[in-house]
Amino acid sequence: MTRPGKRRPARSGGSVDETGEDRAATWVFGPARVEETLQGIPNQVRRVLVRTGRLESRHQALLKIARARGVPLQRVPNQVLDRISEGARHQGAACEVSPVRWLALGEVLSLDPKPSRLLLLDRIEDPRNFGALVRAADGAGVDAVLVPRRGAAPPSPVAVAASAGAIARARLIRIPGAANALRALRAHGYWTVGLTPRAKVRWHEFDWTQPTVLVVGSEGRGLAAGVSRECEVLVSLPQLGSVRSLNVSVATGIVLYEAVRQQALRASETGPETGIPIRS
Amino acid sequence: MTRPGKRRPARSGGSVDETGEDRAATWVFGPARVEETLQGIPNQVRRVLVRTGRLESRHQALLKIARARGVPLQRVPNQVLDRISEGARHQGAACEVSPVRWLALGEVLSLDPKPSRLLLLDRIEDPRNFGALVRAADGAGVDAVLVPRRGAAPPSPVAVAASAGAIARARLIRIPGAANALRALRAHGYWTVGLTPRAKVRWHEFDWTQPTVLVVGSEGRGLAAGVSRECEVLVSLPQLGSVRSLNVSVATGIVLYEAVRQQALRASETGPETGIPIRS
Repeated sequence: MTRPGKRRPARSGGSVDETGEDRAATWVFGPARVEETLQGIPNQVRRVLVRTGRLESRHQALLKIARARGVPLQRVPNQVLDRISEGARHQGAACEVSPVRWLALGEVLSLDPKPSRLLLLDRIEDPRNFGALVRAADGAGVDAVLVPRRGAAPPSPVAVAASAGAIARARLIRIPGAANALRALRAHGYWTVGLTPRAKVRWHEFDWTQPTVLVVGSEGRGLAAGVSRECEVLVSLPQLGSVRSLNVSVATGIVLYEAVRQQALRASETGPETGIPIRS
Repeated sequence: MTRPGKRRPARSGGSVDETGEDRAATWVFGPARVEETLQGIPNQVRRVLVRTGRLESRHQALLKIARARGVPLQRVPNQVLDRISEGARHQGAACEVSPVRWLALGEVLSLDPKPSRLLLLDRIEDPRNFGALVRAADGAGVDAVLVPRRGAAPPSPVAVAASAGAIARARLIRIPGAANALRALRAHGYWTVGLTPRAKVRWHEFDWTQPTVLVVGSEGRGLAAGVSRECEVLVSLPQLGSVRSLNVSVATGIVLYEAVRQQALRASETGPETGIPIRS
């Protein structure tokens, strides 16, 4: 999701940052995640907050990294962190990161090379799930995450914390509606693939090396009927135990990493530049 | 994890239910999860609680199922559910399930057929992660989950909720220490495989159709050195984005379902009874 800058388009026009709420600060909480954010995206960190009082070695490591990277550092009472975190677990450390920058679908489709792996979140209302999904997408190298305007969790502090900071750096696309976006993506040559327990095709039976948008729905309700209809392929994960479903971020991670596996195999079979099979 | 009863051993001796805390009630919250629990393990549900006042159709469905299954049903004010749930999201419905029954490692190793897929949780202290891990293991058909006595989250209401009730039915094994358990498992012919970001072997390069115990560590600290040393194989998942790690339940789900994939392929290649390859 966070490939080198060359694929990022210049900021353009009114479709960017169009929702006011997302201009607000986003936060990352907890020493491990703050450190991760400082190491990964120091330029997007506005300031680091560390609690006053006795510090553990992991807090001291934060102070050191923040100073080395020239990030503003503040020591604040634990209660300040309690208030900012709104219930998320902060363990005495937080950092404020640049706000989410929403892109429009057209901007991403005009990138060169064209992104080959997209994820569409249909009615993910739980901020923890939203964050965990973006984190899984980040790990699996998804190029962009599509979020419908309605019925989606905002990138709140809880979501940012659950994403381990990935939301602050992800290529997030705000779309008016999922069904329309899927029709547009099909017209641009993407396979539209929905994940649903009812599907007969197993997740590993699809060829994920093709340009694809994976569509996942809310935990309780699954894919909306109108969204499911716009998927050319439906795939499922078997449930071998007593529970009827996996957590949506776990299920999505499994499918996204099956794509990573297939792409790694494909890469090992073809020359990196020529695309000609080395082994036939 | 919840295979038919024939593999379950008779309750035997002092190693079962040895920790007092786990005799306490465990709870499942939220209409969807309560319904799942009622459908899946009605005999382990002691009672269902549904809020007083106006009911949505999903609450009414619960009343119907509970009556049909003969499970005691109580209507209680929302505040009672708030108190029982200790902050977990209940949305007006809960059920109390039979307490977790801890098994000893010896009991599980003496099962016939011998369980082939085990999961060991090293220092998983966060109850949500514990629950999510057991839920992922349940989905992937893991035979038993090993939990060291020290430094592990208890099967609290939060953990049970995050597991969607799977904890109440999982085959959970309490072990004195992870390193000793791994040595014992190696002596019984299990591969001991640790998941860690530093490993050169990718998760899909290991043959998961062999009897294996997968070892996963805490999110912040990873595998303890003494535990990592007892693993014959270390595998990793690539991180293609900006964040350094996946959530531990997502990472574990990915690896467990790679095993499901490999076993499905193996099953399609061999006759179900003879073990003779159909295709060579």
